[in-house]
Amino acid sequence: MKPIGPIPAGFTAIEGELAISGRRTSELVEEAGRTPLFVYSKSMIEQRLADLRAAMPDGLKVNYAIKANSYAPLLEYISPLVDGLDIASGGELEMLQELGIDGSRISFAGPGKRDEELEAAIRAGVTLNLESENEARRALAISEKIGVTPRLAIRVNPDFELKGSGMKMGGGAKPFGIDAERVPALARQIVDAGCDWRGLHIFTGSQALSAEAVTEAQSNILDLAIRLANEAGVGLPKLNMGGGFGIPYFNGDTPLEIVRVGNALRELFKKHSQDIAETELFIELGRYLVGEAGVYLTRIVDRKESHGETYLVTDGGLHHQLAASGNFGTVVRRNYPVAIASYFAAEPTEVANIVGCLCTPLDRLADKAHVPKADVGDIVAVFCAGAYGASASPSAFLGQGPAAELLV
Amino acid sequence: MKPIGPIPAGFTAIEGELAISGRRTSELVEEAGRTPLFVYSKSMIEQRLADLRAAMPDGLKVNYAIKANSYAPLLEYISPLVDGLDIASGGELEMLQELGIDGSRISFAGPGKRDEELEAAIRAGVTLNLESENEARRALAISEKIGVTPRLAIRVNPDFELKGSGMKMGGGAKPFGIDAERVPALARQIVDAGCDWRGLHIFTGSQALSAEAVTEAQSNILDLAIRLANEAGVGLPKLNMGGGFGIPYFNGDTPLEIVRVGNALRELFKKHSQDIAETELFIELGRYLVGEAGVYLTRIVDRKESHGETYLVTDGGLHHQLAASGNFGTVVRRNYPVAIASYFAAEPTEVANIVGCLCTPLDRLADKAHVPKADVGDIVAVFCAGAYGASASPSAFLGQGPAAELLV
Repeated sequence: MKPIGPIPAGFTAIEGELAISGRRTSELVEEAGRTPLFVYSKSMIEQRLADLRAAMPDGLKVNYAIKANSYAPLLEYISPLVDGLDIASGGELEMLQELGIDGSRISFAGPGKRDEELEAAIRAGVTLNLESENEARRALAISEKIGVTPRLAIRVNPDFELKGSGMKMGGGAKPFGIDAERVPALARQIVDAGCDWRGLHIFTGSQALSAEAVTEAQSNILDLAIRLANEAGVGLPKLNMGGGFGIPYFNGDTPLEIVRVGNALRELFKKHSQDIAETELFIELGRYLVGEAGVYLTRIVDRKESHGETYLVTDGGLHHQLAASGNFGTVVRRNYPVAIASYFAAEPTEVANIVGCLCTPLDRLADKAHVPKADVGDIVAVFCAGAYGASASPSAFLGQGPAAELLV
Repeated sequence: MKPIGPIPAGFTAIEGELAISGRRTSELVEEAGRTPLFVYSKSMIEQRLADLRAAMPDGLKVNYAIKANSYAPLLEYISPLVDGLDIASGGELEMLQELGIDGSRISFAGPGKRDEELEAAIRAGVTLNLESENEARRALAISEKIGVTPRLAIRVNPDFELKGSGMKMGGGAKPFGIDAERVPALARQIVDAGCDWRGLHIFTGSQALSAEAVTEAQSNILDLAIRLANEAGVGLPKLNMGGGFGIPYFNGDTPLEIVRVGNALRELFKKHSQDIAETELFIELGRYLVGEAGVYLTRIVDRKESHGETYLVTDGGLHHQLAASGNFGTVVRRNYPVAIASYFAAEPTEVANIVGCLCTPLDRLADKAHVPKADVGDIVAVFCAGAYGASASPSAFLGQGPAAELLV
């Protein structure tokens, strides 16, 4: 038997069946017309944001990084609940423009921005988080060509990292941002060129569960941003402190204590109050806002035995849930939180392997999981599917195509 | 410096630039209208098949597993060159039907076939490689309902594996196929039910580079298939021996010696000549036929320095080349064969990290690669991109969308 990850709080059962936003999975599947299906809960996203706002210092703004989940109804729902939206490509800009979201609420980071992406963003009044001196030159040339003053911030490659984070984005040589010591000179150039100077963006990592680690990174970020702005003598109208707030995926993971993070950040803001009096302060979260609010539902199409092991074969798999299969940025595969949605309230009675329908041994959703007995037609739920699920998986693999999605 | 993988034989330079099928990359990019771009070489696929046919015993048939690459023009090109096509989903069946390929040339394996997929396949005269007794029951019920005699084969979960293969598909408990000892009973049921009995499918692994390992697996497969058919007393009209032929991706990998594989297989066929006199014998290859014939071309959009390291940031990345980024079924990331296509004939002069445009540290195409100096606008080539590239990557990630594709 292998442990499964912790099922996020807030899910209930109705007559034994998993319910999402108060509606049973069988009803949701019927509404969508098919499995596999991603269901995202509005109330869980709203609750998450309310808890976060309550924990964080007054005035701290919260951006949503749409790369985590760019399902259009979800973007439409979350957009008025957050203070801004962060994008990572021209394609993501188009998604927001289709929803009528104003460019002044959008920031664009990403190390490989093409000229046409820079131009579209500048025209739309999007803030560019510049990733290199070269990108700054290209952005300035484009603004001059089209006659639009660009909103420019600098993404800093910091000398420190977010400890214990799932993905480190700072500390040493990196493709992201500009090494700290070169930032003041570039900031001055930007201001001297008459651009709309939008300050700094410092991202140190993602998926951290330790409040101490997040606080340490935030303290370092504030110190660095203030030092760089002072050195440049250009002021700090805005500071995007990045994110890094993780969610528990695996057995033993515990939720990030955001109250502790918020309290510590309040102290940091006090300590630096003079230096940041004129600064809009942002955190940028993706996974933390939507990850636990999403569930992936897939139907069992076969139940089989092989050499004494039970396999539940589903109509879903890694083509929709690459990370849950253990094939995206993970070295050792561990089980995500999974359950038999059809018998959510039942006690586990057997050990089963839950696999996808793809003809590859990589396609595993749970290894040796202790679950209630399930059969063909029953629904399996994979939790923590709200972020980096549908959009971060190879949906065309083996001709399968994308899953359905619902926001309820 | 980290070694890069071996560039497949057959690529040349024209005036210093990489050429594919005798055409320079700059010309191909112009024809496609954009980067990133996958280019697949007809002549390399044709040569690969000719060499394979020459090496293998007379009468051995070769199927193409379209999961490796299902780009429609490539399917259209390869279909008349092979003896059959293997699919893994109803979606792949539709792709072949759109090209007018007859169902009698198609076999369908995959552990999670839905009822509608079974029905479409039976109607089209496709051979089903049954993965469980349960699937057999469903297939029989559907054929009865629609009044079509199904073509049925059994996929065997063998007790042995393909040694040294990148992905093991046999040996112990598996979601694929039916444990060998249960096969004879099911085979008899299928024949007794009046189905069109199409024999056995035994797949033991993929991506093996050792001729000895492939030969040992093929020997075991023949022994097992003959034993099971004899036990069942149903004959062996067809045997799909699977594939497993690998291609070199990484430094130190050497090509599979197919002449040795073919010679050994010829001996095996002689040894078993009485038992297989009436058997159509197949191997099923995907990656081996098309993998080395494909090149992924991506343009450098930024060249930057960070803490003494050089980064070439491209407009492509893991959203098209997940496996090359080291995030698909690999534990330790190693460099694929890569080159600066624009200076293919030049000597390496610097060490650079080649990364994608995605805002994630997972998006790496080459770490510390020794390459000729390249700048913004130059083209990078990632080789071995013909299989499990475009279709096995999360093209929607970060709103990027799919790459262009060309068959030349």
